[in-house]
Amino acid sequence: MLPILFLLFLLISCTHASIPEICVANLKGPQTPAGYTCKDTTKVTVEDYVFAGLAKAGNTTNIIKAAVTPGFVGQFPGLNGLGLSLARLDLAHGGVIPFHTHPGASEVLIVLRGAITAGFVSSANTVYLKRLRKGDAMAFPQGLLHFQLNSGKSHAIAVVSFSSPDPGLQITDFALFANNLPSALIEEATFLDDAQVKKLKGVLGGTG
Amino acid sequence: MLPILFLLFLLISCTHASIPEICVANLKGPQTPAGYTCKDTTKVTVEDYVFAGLAKAGNTTNIIKAAVTPGFVGQFPGLNGLGLSLARLDLAHGGVIPFHTHPGASEVLIVLRGAITAGFVSSANTVYLKRLRKGDAMAFPQGLLHFQLNSGKSHAIAVVSFSSPDPGLQITDFALFANNLPSALIEEATFLDDAQVKKLKGVLGGTG
Amino acid sequence: MLPILFLLFLLISCTHASIPEICVANLKGPQTPAGYTCKDTTKVTVEDYVFAGLAKAGNTTNIIKAAVTPGFVGQFPGLNGLGLSLARLDLAHGGVIPFHTHPGASEVLIVLRGAITAGFVSSANTVYLKRLRKGDAMAFPQGLLHFQLNSGKSHAIAVVSFSSPDPGLQITDFALFANNLPSALIEEATFLDDAQVKKLKGVLGGTG
Amino acid sequence: MLPILFLLFLLISCTHASIPEICVANLKGPQTPAGYTCKDTTKVTVEDYVFAGLAKAGNTTNIIKAAVTPGFVGQFPGLNGLGLSLARLDLAHGGVIPFHTHPGASEVLIVLRGAITAGFVSSANTVYLKRLRKGDAMAFPQGLLHFQLNSGKSHAIAVVSFSSPDPGLQITDFALFANNLPSALIEEATFLDDAQVKKLKGVLGGTG
Amino acid sequence: MLPILFLLFLLISCTHASIPEICVANLKGPQTPAGYTCKDTTKVTVEDYVFAGLAKAGNTTNIIKAAVTPGFVGQFPGLNGLGLSLARLDLAHGGVIPFHTHPGASEVLIVLRGAITAGFVSSANTVYLKRLRKGDAMAFPQGLLHFQLNSGKSHAIAVVSFSSPDPGLQITDFALFANNLPSALIEEATFLDDAQVKKLKGVLGGTG
Amino acid sequence: MLPILFLLFLLISCTHASIPEICVANLKGPQTPAGYTCKDTTKVTVEDYVFAGLAKAGNTTNIIKAAVTPGFVGQFPGLNGLGLSLARLDLAHGGVIPFHTHPGASEVLIVLRGAITAGFVSSANTVYLKRLRKGDAMAFPQGLLHFQLNSGKSHAIAVVSFSSPDPGLQITDFALFANNLPSALIEEATFLDDAQVKKLKGVLGGTG
Repeated sequence: MLPILFLLFLLISCTHASIPEICVANLKGPQTPAGYTCKDTTKVTVEDYVFAGLAKAGNTTNIIKAAVTPGFVGQFPGLNGLGLSLARLDLAHGGVIPFHTHPGASEVLIVLRGAITAGFVSSANTVYLKRLRKGDAMAFPQGLLHFQLNSGKSHAIAVVSFSSPDPGLQITDFALFANNLPSALIEEATFLDDAQVKKLKGVLGGTG
Repeated sequence: MLPILFLLFLLISCTHASIPEICVANLKGPQTPAGYTCKDTTKVTVEDYVFAGLAKAGNTTNIIKAAVTPGFVGQFPGLNGLGLSLARLDLAHGGVIPFHTHPGASEVLIVLRGAITAGFVSSANTVYLKRLRKGDAMAFPQGLLHFQLNSGKSHAIAVVSFSSPDPGLQITDFALFANNLPSALIEEATFLDDAQVKKLKGVLGGTG
Repeated sequence: MLPILFLLFLLISCTHASIPEICVANLKGPQTPAGYTCKDTTKVTVEDYVFAGLAKAGNTTNIIKAAVTPGFVGQFPGLNGLGLSLARLDLAHGGVIPFHTHPGASEVLIVLRGAITAGFVSSANTVYLKRLRKGDAMAFPQGLLHFQLNSGKSHAIAVVSFSSPDPGLQITDFALFANNLPSALIEEATFLDDAQVKKLKGVLGGTG
Repeated sequence: MLPILFLLFLLISCTHASIPEICVANLKGPQTPAGYTCKDTTKVTVEDYVFAGLAKAGNTTNIIKAAVTPGFVGQFPGLNGLGLSLARLDLAHGGVIPFHTHPGASEVLIVLRGAITAGFVSSANTVYLKRLRKGDAMAFPQGLLHFQLNSGKSHAIAVVSFSSPDPGLQITDFALFANNLPSALIEEATFLDDAQVKKLKGVLGGTG
Repeated sequence: MLPILFLLFLLISCTHASIPEICVANLKGPQTPAGYTCKDTTKVTVEDYVFAGLAKAGNTTNIIKAAVTPGFVGQFPGLNGLGLSLARLDLAHGGVIPFHTHPGASEVLIVLRGAITAGFVSSANTVYLKRLRKGDAMAFPQGLLHFQLNSGKSHAIAVVSFSSPDPGLQITDFALFANNLPSALIEEATFLDDAQVKKLKGVLGGTG
Repeated sequence: MLPILFLLFLLISCTHASIPEICVANLKGPQTPAGYTCKDTTKVTVEDYVFAGLAKAGNTTNIIKAAVTPGFVGQFPGLNGLGLSLARLDLAHGGVIPFHTHPGASEVLIVLRGAITAGFVSSANTVYLKRLRKGDAMAFPQGLLHFQLNSGKSHAIAVVSFSSPDPGLQITDFALFANNLPSALIEEATFLDDAQVKKLKGVLGGTG
């Protein structure tokens, strides 16, 4: 048996010299446009492919009464190179995930609890709006403005999937009002009133 | 106001002559290697981007005591070109999704109810096995053999996401025993015993 | 000579049975996630690969004192499948291309005349802002909010390139205020004041 | 058994509504940037996945004493969307495949018979040249100028693989001299002498 | 002449600052989802682009009377980033490459000697089976179960090409029986009998 | 306010653990098939996204009376992973960019000044030729032979965009005559006369 096994091992080893399918992110190493460099394969375990972070509700005690708990490659290194990531949305009563985009990925959402009204706007400015109930799924094409809000009475929960391990998340309010973009420039590039800009900068900690 | 609006409309229309981000599958048309041709944009509504099919439990009264309910592009045409799809897994007590692969996509699973033991095998034949509880997520790289089974006492439910609108699903048992592959050939190419092959062909409706 | 030429023709014909590099968009046909179906190759001429539309200044007599003249695949069918498109920006004194994104492409801009201040914001809300002079180029990663404004005294002109034949263009103001998104919903999902929303809906022709 | 089979069939049918992995080229239909539209799946047979055209030697009775027999998607429709194609090279004694490029694909060659000297030139103008014997393989990165010639005494044969179903083939001599490019223009854009240009146009059937 | 050459060199050097087409795998460095990091270009020679490993027959004195000799990026570093790799199949009389998949690539096979029966099974469980003779080529879409066996009397040889430098190779028998997957779990997830599982674990060196 | 801001920061930080959209090339690090590894994000500034190198005319005092000034990733590191790059063409009266290809990208050119005749040749040897005036744009599919020449009386300027940060540039004359390819081999693989080959090797500094 042993000679046979040895020969089989030879057979296998020659064919397995390069295994790209196991490329867990080395989060301490550099990124590349295609993802992280791969962790040493001998150190990979099933734990790299498992993520428990979405089990717990996010903290919705905040201004938007909602939370986004990511399972992106930074939290879930086994996703590196797999073209996927996850997140959990918790929306308390009255909660909202404000208008945002994912520059790097499309999204599919499925409602696990409660009722969520979600919508996106296309480049043609057409609105796609739907009140989703438990079990409903909705797709959001990459890069388009969209939002979700709790349209029911109880806490709402959804799981979202993205078509990239690192979809990005640009919340419009934060992008405009939470940094040091000069107010005058924002007003020029959005036609918003100065009072409005100053107000939201105040809320979101922006300067300028 | 109207002249301004008209000028703005001109501004917009010139820039919106080609909108690829809205490419809902025309399921009556041909496929291409990149997906379906796009449905006429004027006929697209939010309903193309919403799918309710995962709301209902699949029927687990079968030999595997489990069901896979797909939300692929064929069921959910808004997914066309988005790099994503979904499915729902229902596993009754003792249920199993037998060893299978998705030739066209990687997968991420999240447990919604119960306990599921899941595992995949790499090209190096290394086993990655984990007992997952509610809220746990697990990733399965594209094309690798994997399975899920209910390792708890109650009905288990999971949602899975794929990195393609059309991931494919090749269940090993079905691929080998549910068609007309000659038994002798199967035995030659798997080293399984004739009795085993004949038995499973019998169960799964294969011939030859 | 003729036999030689015939043999050479044979040599060529056998090797040229499938030419994908010439795939001019058939704008009357359907789109696919990878672009338009290809026009009949026998009807392709150099005119399909040439576009004169950027030669003329866009009309800046409008609310933003600016114009975007596209050279996307819809205007320039030879771009189909080439991973590129162009546009021309004209900004009168005080003109601005308001905050917008290109969901489908990255962008590089080069200033041909005048001075343009341009900036983008990353998902981390970091601002990248620069006053560009003639000959300067600036890159904008895909999907991120950005804007351009004329920061000089005279008419400014730029040419922009995109990494897709169909980059899309979502102007934030238009996406929020130029359609029928209910005001209450916008306010909930942006924290903008009702007066502000109503005002901009009025300017941009939105309803609701 | 039948109810079980029926349930299993249900299980399968729901999951197999969209099968992109079988996308044989409909050669009568249009192309797209991603390949041909798919032939009706019910009409696909194993013959679409088999190609016998490389079995026979190409005719080397021509000016280059060589022949290229393609197995591209146009000849081998099962390759549609698979990222691969083949060709057979026959080089009689003294035969040569003149300098050429494959705009759409990288190439790997393996010598089956005889000896072939092959080489490519990089964008940095570095020459990579090797005399290959039976069993040797050589790789040529996409789009780079390369050639093969018979450097042995007997008929040489090679099989080449490409990283696209439709790699294209641009033979430099043919591109310059076998069409109606004006001689003056060629001379301006190549610095070749008029006598040289006229001579090769004569041989290759070009005009102008 | 020299000033002209110097100016030309200037012309070239400015345009050749970044050459991605030469990206030979640095096999001592990390992998990324797109391949290996590139070896120092100054150390690249033609030998990186040549591979002699397929010249020699693989050793078929084993349980399957066959051998697969790979020319993947691990053996042939010039393939890095080229979307291609090769392997050589040797099948003695009665030899078989058991059912397997390539998770990462499609495959095209060409028979060089003897007769080979090859087949693949689609996700729809349709069988595509063909007895191939010398010179015949067959394509196998990515990720689908397939096999090859010697259906002639003499030693058979084939060359196979893959659409990735690192296609992976998952032999079903090895994935199921050559590791430490618990027998009970295998039986649950394949419906194979315990005796069958134990037997093949014994042959292939599996435990559990 | 502070608690709210802190909670918002929590909200943001959890979602921003991995930001791939900012991946400026670390030009001191290795390349990969997908581009350079990313520079440390904390060291990225707007200057990485700005490039002034195309502002100045290239030096056309050379044999071709033209210059190509690149803005590829090697000069403009913010382009890393963005699928774009630029260059500036200057053509003095009588100037020409000789026949060349870009192995890695398609190209779009726009004339800024003067008149430029440009053309490309397809794999089918069809010529696409056009005299372009100021403001005209022309597209050149990836990998195909093309050229530009000044067809006006004054200095001509164009900006070109490429569909890759690193398109490569292979000038046919340089590839054939500016290195150490043996003359006999060139003659065999191009059918050019020895006198012609020797002459151009002399001009371009080739040996052999």
